[in-house]
Amino acid sequence: MGEIVSEYPALPEGIAFGGDYNPEQWPREVQEEDVRLMRQAGVNLVSLSIFSWVLMEPREGVYEFGWLDQIVDRLHHAGISVNLGTPTAVPPAWFSARYPGAFPVTREGVRVGSGGRQNACSSDPDFRAAGARLAEQLVTRYGDHPAVVMWHVHNEYGAPLGECYCPSSVAAWREWLRHRYESLDALNTAWGTTFWGQRYGEWDEIDAPRWSHTVVNPAQRLDYARFANEEHLSHYRLQREILRRCGKPVTTNFAGTVNCKSMDLWRWAPELDVIANDHYLDGERPDNHIQLAMSADLSRSLAGGGPWMLMEHSTGGISWQPRGIAKRPGEMRRNSLAHVARGSDSVLFFQWRASRYGAEKWHSAMVPHVGTDSQIWRDVVALGQDVRRLSPVRGSRVTGEVAIVWDWESYWAIELEWRPSADLSFRERVDAFYEALWREHVTTDFVHPSADISAYKLVVVPSSYLLTEGSAKNLQRYVEAGGHLLVSYFSGIVDENDTVHEGPYPGALREVLGLAVEEFHPLRERETVALTGGAMGRIWSERVRLARAVAVREFADGPDAGHPAVTGNGFGAGTAWYLATALAGDDLRGLLGEVLDRAEVRRPRGLPDTLEFVRRGPHVFLINHGDAPVTVAGVSGTDLLTGALFPGWVPPGGVAVVETPAG
Amino acid sequence: MGEIVSEYPALPEGIAFGGDYNPEQWPREVQEEDVRLMRQAGVNLVSLSIFSWVLMEPREGVYEFGWLDQIVDRLHHAGISVNLGTPTAVPPAWFSARYPGAFPVTREGVRVGSGGRQNACSSDPDFRAAGARLAEQLVTRYGDHPAVVMWHVHNEYGAPLGECYCPSSVAAWREWLRHRYESLDALNTAWGTTFWGQRYGEWDEIDAPRWSHTVVNPAQRLDYARFANEEHLSHYRLQREILRRCGKPVTTNFAGTVNCKSMDLWRWAPELDVIANDHYLDGERPDNHIQLAMSADLSRSLAGGGPWMLMEHSTGGISWQPRGIAKRPGEMRRNSLAHVARGSDSVLFFQWRASRYGAEKWHSAMVPHVGTDSQIWRDVVALGQDVRRLSPVRGSRVTGEVAIVWDWESYWAIELEWRPSADLSFRERVDAFYEALWREHVTTDFVHPSADISAYKLVVVPSSYLLTEGSAKNLQRYVEAGGHLLVSYFSGIVDENDTVHEGPYPGALREVLGLAVEEFHPLRERETVALTGGAMGRIWSERVRLARAVAVREFADGPDAGHPAVTGNGFGAGTAWYLATALAGDDLRGLLGEVLDRAEVRRPRGLPDTLEFVRRGPHVFLINHGDAPVTVAGVSGTDLLTGALFPGWVPPGGVAVVETPAG
Amino acid sequence: MGEIVSEYPALPEGIAFGGDYNPEQWPREVQEEDVRLMRQAGVNLVSLSIFSWVLMEPREGVYEFGWLDQIVDRLHHAGISVNLGTPTAVPPAWFSARYPGAFPVTREGVRVGSGGRQNACSSDPDFRAAGARLAEQLVTRYGDHPAVVMWHVHNEYGAPLGECYCPSSVAAWREWLRHRYESLDALNTAWGTTFWGQRYGEWDEIDAPRWSHTVVNPAQRLDYARFANEEHLSHYRLQREILRRCGKPVTTNFAGTVNCKSMDLWRWAPELDVIANDHYLDGERPDNHIQLAMSADLSRSLAGGGPWMLMEHSTGGISWQPRGIAKRPGEMRRNSLAHVARGSDSVLFFQWRASRYGAEKWHSAMVPHVGTDSQIWRDVVALGQDVRRLSPVRGSRVTGEVAIVWDWESYWAIELEWRPSADLSFRERVDAFYEALWREHVTTDFVHPSADISAYKLVVVPSSYLLTEGSAKNLQRYVEAGGHLLVSYFSGIVDENDTVHEGPYPGALREVLGLAVEEFHPLRERETVALTGGAMGRIWSERVRLARAVAVREFADGPDAGHPAVTGNGFGAGTAWYLATALAGDDLRGLLGEVLDRAEVRRPRGLPDTLEFVRRGPHVFLINHGDAPVTVAGVSGTDLLTGALFPGWVPPGGVAVVETPAG
Repeated sequence: MGEIVSEYPALPEGIAFGGDYNPEQWPREVQEEDVRLMRQAGVNLVSLSIFSWVLMEPREGVYEFGWLDQIVDRLHHAGISVNLGTPTAVPPAWFSARYPGAFPVTREGVRVGSGGRQNACSSDPDFRAAGARLAEQLVTRYGDHPAVVMWHVHNEYGAPLGECYCPSSVAAWREWLRHRYESLDALNTAWGTTFWGQRYGEWDEIDAPRWSHTVVNPAQRLDYARFANEEHLSHYRLQREILRRCGKPVTTNFAGTVNCKSMDLWRWAPELDVIANDHYLDGERPDNHIQLAMSADLSRSLAGGGPWMLMEHSTGGISWQPRGIAKRPGEMRRNSLAHVARGSDSVLFFQWRASRYGAEKWHSAMVPHVGTDSQIWRDVVALGQDVRRLSPVRGSRVTGEVAIVWDWESYWAIELEWRPSADLSFRERVDAFYEALWREHVTTDFVHPSADISAYKLVVVPSSYLLTEGSAKNLQRYVEAGGHLLVSYFSGIVDENDTVHEGPYPGALREVLGLAVEEFHPLRERETVALTGGAMGRIWSERVRLARAVAVREFADGPDAGHPAVTGNGFGAGTAWYLATALAGDDLRGLLGEVLDRAEVRRPRGLPDTLEFVRRGPHVFLINHGDAPVTVAGVSGTDLLTGALFPGWVPPGGVAVVETPAG
Repeated sequence: MGEIVSEYPALPEGIAFGGDYNPEQWPREVQEEDVRLMRQAGVNLVSLSIFSWVLMEPREGVYEFGWLDQIVDRLHHAGISVNLGTPTAVPPAWFSARYPGAFPVTREGVRVGSGGRQNACSSDPDFRAAGARLAEQLVTRYGDHPAVVMWHVHNEYGAPLGECYCPSSVAAWREWLRHRYESLDALNTAWGTTFWGQRYGEWDEIDAPRWSHTVVNPAQRLDYARFANEEHLSHYRLQREILRRCGKPVTTNFAGTVNCKSMDLWRWAPELDVIANDHYLDGERPDNHIQLAMSADLSRSLAGGGPWMLMEHSTGGISWQPRGIAKRPGEMRRNSLAHVARGSDSVLFFQWRASRYGAEKWHSAMVPHVGTDSQIWRDVVALGQDVRRLSPVRGSRVTGEVAIVWDWESYWAIELEWRPSADLSFRERVDAFYEALWREHVTTDFVHPSADISAYKLVVVPSSYLLTEGSAKNLQRYVEAGGHLLVSYFSGIVDENDTVHEGPYPGALREVLGLAVEEFHPLRERETVALTGGAMGRIWSERVRLARAVAVREFADGPDAGHPAVTGNGFGAGTAWYLATALAGDDLRGLLGEVLDRAEVRRPRGLPDTLEFVRRGPHVFLINHGDAPVTVAGVSGTDLLTGALFPGWVPPGGVAVVETPAG
Repeated sequence: MGEIVSEYPALPEGIAFGGDYNPEQWPREVQEEDVRLMRQAGVNLVSLSIFSWVLMEPREGVYEFGWLDQIVDRLHHAGISVNLGTPTAVPPAWFSARYPGAFPVTREGVRVGSGGRQNACSSDPDFRAAGARLAEQLVTRYGDHPAVVMWHVHNEYGAPLGECYCPSSVAAWREWLRHRYESLDALNTAWGTTFWGQRYGEWDEIDAPRWSHTVVNPAQRLDYARFANEEHLSHYRLQREILRRCGKPVTTNFAGTVNCKSMDLWRWAPELDVIANDHYLDGERPDNHIQLAMSADLSRSLAGGGPWMLMEHSTGGISWQPRGIAKRPGEMRRNSLAHVARGSDSVLFFQWRASRYGAEKWHSAMVPHVGTDSQIWRDVVALGQDVRRLSPVRGSRVTGEVAIVWDWESYWAIELEWRPSADLSFRERVDAFYEALWREHVTTDFVHPSADISAYKLVVVPSSYLLTEGSAKNLQRYVEAGGHLLVSYFSGIVDENDTVHEGPYPGALREVLGLAVEEFHPLRERETVALTGGAMGRIWSERVRLARAVAVREFADGPDAGHPAVTGNGFGAGTAWYLATALAGDDLRGLLGEVLDRAEVRRPRGLPDTLEFVRRGPHVFLINHGDAPVTVAGVSGTDLLTGALFPGWVPPGGVAVVETPAG
């Protein structure tokens, strides 16, 4: 997938640099200044027309493209390429007035109003048809334009519109179910409708899992989440098929790989010609550079390890967060280069120029309200130079020895109602493991549990509650063949229908772990348990009965005092580890260090955990997030950013990209 | 009422033991294993078919009972009795699709969706008729079956569906009002419609008290709460009348006597042949054994002091709580025996076998997911043996010398909007008084304020805001005749229409208390006031003016410093005490101790407050909730649980049931 | 405006004293006692029939006024004047049943139910017409009645019903927009509809800014707030035009000038013959006397500096607050006299007699439930005497040297979604500045930013985010002519359409302030920054670039360490000060003190900040809110309240009203 970026000749050379561009908000003189400034900053790619439907089609069936022709030509003339958007994320007011049935409806039955965005349902037939007609117009007019190098369909599917409960959605849902199950018997079995007497006798009896004053069938809700994902995907595919005719790559921007929970991006990745991610810092979080790395690593993993595109990030404050925290000196640069370190072949921003009006006027931009006499603009220009120097990096791959299992279906399932503990969380565990690995300077991939994981030295399974029998077998074969598997509590508990695997927990992983869990003992809010050796567990305790596994740590107190808390099991040529409680911070890092050593995972030693260390192809990225200089032994070569020999240390806040001879 | 359990010959001998049984969720081989295991555990009663409507009537008017015949026969063959359910708590999908008008509607106008339970309105005529037809089928087919010993109508009326605001409800509401008031003048007077100009000129002008952006007429809301209760009750009665034809007892299970606020169980109790309660621990609350005792005592009080049935409780974690806290070693046994101590003639669980799917799969069971090689199963089997040994207890009564007034109408009224303080709470006061009595080893009854209370030595009135003139007179006569009455602030304030009794507060109790309250002085959030003698009050202060009463304690600071905080009034042959602020914990226990002494309430002395001490007929139940052994002087006889002489002490976590010679 | 109270001969002499009176809730004997008690207390004005529509018009078109005739005559006979209400705040049940389209609808689409109040939409044509017919009836019948001295239209417009989203509202909204913008081009420009492609091609495509799952066009929302305000105002005007025929003053009571955010009272003030304010203490807030002063000062400012009427306040606890905190000894008196000090010519209460039923029965009253043998009644009678002694104060004016800019449009705009920081707040800044001024004993006016402010020595601009070019020019001219302007951060940022002023921030005030702001640096939750000199800023930091201004304080740490935090700029004959972070308490008071000195604002020195000091005409009001006596030097004359010479000090909790010779 990602390869296409490198292969497609029309794309600008080197790393793409630029952002979302909304010239329609400005008079001609500003548009002309824009191009001048873009050249000054080294911009070589902009995304156009993402919200411009009503300008393209001011009345139904009446198209006006003159304004866009002018802009595209002007950019082309300046040597700036265009990523052209299909603007279906906001239908025109005339559309909404004429097709009110397209307004989304929430689970509680509230119809979404107009005036915002994402205010049409992806299942609505009128909305789909209108979007397809528009895509036809676009590909016909711009398909051969030399400036247009790629297509950007819609915008951030699933954010904020995940599931819709309108009548069109219900009709599509019944069709989707017929297709999935073929017979009502199969559906009744999958959904366990004998529980609470919910058996269906006709397809038309099935409704969407609307809000209820009590819990709703979890298998039904899980399928609705799948259905909603597929509807958005099918909306995308309809446009993609039309756009692809011109032979240029088609993408859509993910609303943050790690944050857009409603979309199963493993299903989307194969449908995109290039993976495109939008990433925004959680401004007030001190470790947001680690969250950034995670988002980038998941983007790369979706791209199969190859390059991907950072489609949006910010130069500073973000409008939709409670506080638009500005970036600290050098932070924009560190963020941008960290994305490139982890596989991005682009550094793109939302947005080129800050709007003076509308919902996002308080979102930062490359050209801020204050204009070019500003630190932000000077930083943007300097970053453009950095980016140009990174051209040699383009197209190269990042290879990890460790992978974390990431499965959206399990993510959805664990967050449904009435789980054994409200504190059970897929993300909490992923974050804990990822952070420990990041601080250990281990570059981590993410994998679907059914993927080929044979190349990894260690695979981590973080509270992967839903695990199909097939995926479980895949993990088991991996260990059998010599892999190391580290499994968190509450993994492998249910199958794809939220039905508990038979026998003692964790049904799907019992054999490879060499143990059985007899009973869960969720901890009280803020309760902790001590482990032998001094670590402290939260959230969870449980009664582990060893079969072939051996205890590595035991609970020292709590409901399972004296019973195993951490176990290891030699299985075939490999080892499966199990963690029966939630460790975090140094406790987790300590344990993980032991496992990494046993798995012989390579990583630099002796570095502080403020230094980000990533190897991309022959280049080593060294990003210093701390306030002190960091000496890095064993890395030598030219620093692409300075053109000089890497001096062996990175200043506070600084970055080096060292071209190593080994590369 | 409760007596019927003992009298009805078909019921199993001794204490009933078993639980909800859903064999339809399992293949035949598991069903057969179920019966084998039930016999092993000593199960003698199961509740069947509570959610099986769609299995009984897969299409409208088409009935299929073969599957149920098989199960009932199999159980009968094994000597296990059946409590047969009418499964109206979940109508079939075909019903909901055909009669969408039966879906409940919330106060805010949101229609409840399907996929959960309790998703039909008790007022809906189609829903009622369909349920009645089903009851006809059941009584015809199983009325004479020797295994079927009782009927279980619906499930937990009022939870979560209390009030419904659908059109059928509004129509029924108008009829109910016509019947209650006969004339609009009477209604206008009762509701005080001259306030805010809300006078009604036609019955059809009256709507349900829907959500408003401001407060809604409190008398109207109070009547709607009454109406909703009566609608559920009338839904129950319709089925009961049909089922009763076969001469077997009919019940419905209360959704926790102390927790199902929306149902006025004093109105339900006379309509049930046996009182049945579902009780679930509030898992994270350290004093949940005291809450359990309160629920049991209220159940017994509803049964008129006679035996009742614990219809559901749990072996461990509860799915609908934020965290499914497992029971500690011995806790299930202590819970079960505490219910029996307080009058239950059954120990029944939800559920026999944990489901692998559906909304409640994380609810514990007698047979957990892990199967019989588990502590839970071993505990269940041991408990079955204990229960069998308690047969002599069956049918005996518990008699209390102290009663707490419990009135659902007052509970509803005090929680309506715009009260003098958001901290005013009926339950907070009940809990405080009950806890103090429990720790003093006093077994407490609950009474409606209009009930015959002449036999009690002390009656406690805990913030009984709504008190009719008749009830107030009843309390006054009680004191006059020699009783002791302990009244909390904010009692006897309004009549049945939420209209303030005339004259100084508390209008309905002023005379018996011998005082008047001039002005309320609600305390600020977390503000406290000191009393002379050292106690500390919260929530409330007020200006008490003594008439004939004398001050027992005064406020030492706060808005009423120097004025009475606790008073006593000799009235006729008795005494009425008054508490003008919220005391809790040891402060309340100290004061209550004085009152108990004055009222000559008998209770064991010198026992720690970790020991539960209850006398049921000739048997003394001693339940040690603490971590240390407790010596109990003055109790001697055989311990039913061991068959040996009670050794005079109870081990940590242990229970003794001593058959005393006096009994 | 306010002058009319003094000029209108029918109004009682001196200060009006009384309250809302609901005789229809009581039998005749109570009504007769009411009049007797009113005379005892010195009541001379009551507000009648505010919620009596259904009594006046029990069926559509059938009017009954006999009951009201009796009451008005009885009051007249007793020399008590009447403020007669048009009772449209609650339509009759028959109206709601017949015209269900008049029920308001929330932004989320929930229809407001009946049983409360304000349950009809001000835009609904049937509701308007019915109200107009009623006003006709009232003016015809009572226009010449000598007891009726003024009209009280509706009740508290905008509370709680601000915006309505019913179909009638949408229709009126489109008309309102046509009138405001004339062309869709103008509307599209004003709303910035090129952002997110929201351009309108037809007027009928425009909907109300309903709830959306994402942010809605802020200019559209701002206009809807304006529209809603105008609709209520036009509802008022319709009745006023009818009532005015009789030549008596017409008013409507504001739901708390500082608290009823949904109404732009600058638009209302010119339409009222007398400004009438309802004020309720925030019971649990220790500085609620300062909030009271602010509400009174804004009332007076709306009255152009002349007298106004305190239409409602309370004798004690307030029903709609979480806790109905009673007033402390003397507090009702201090509150009442503080209102008079700040320009009120009346001391009126909600309510005369506490209702025994309905939603507000727990609201305090002049005659409490307990009756006249109560502290409250004794305090009311004493207050009546005080009020009578204050007759000489009537009609006199209060003149401030300092004004705070208060603009509802900016208040609305700053609270829309997606602002740079969730902590940005107009009210937070107003409260901080007002409190500092109050503690400095400076009497403060409030002004619209476009008003004539030439007479003030200092004008404070507290986070006035929205500032039109015209208003900004007004402020600039003021400084140029010699005024002192103190501007808070985040002022003058956007124009009337929420469009950012061009160029560096703050676009509208850059020139007068002599600086530019390059970038905002919102602080994290609870983060603080230090200033040189020791003060501490919260909420906000920003990068200030000085042009002609000089730095008065700098940031000592945080994102702008070393850059200006407080600046001053000589501009023309005046000075403009700027504050780039949120100072509060003593920090703000210290800085403000310097500015007051520079502006030569007169104020008493050496007084503690527990003493309220206000000059009204020749009278100095001295209100001691503290627990210690306060000596006041330099004030001499007769204390109106005692008739004796002011002794030079005010006792704890006491009040003096000194008639100074200078007056």
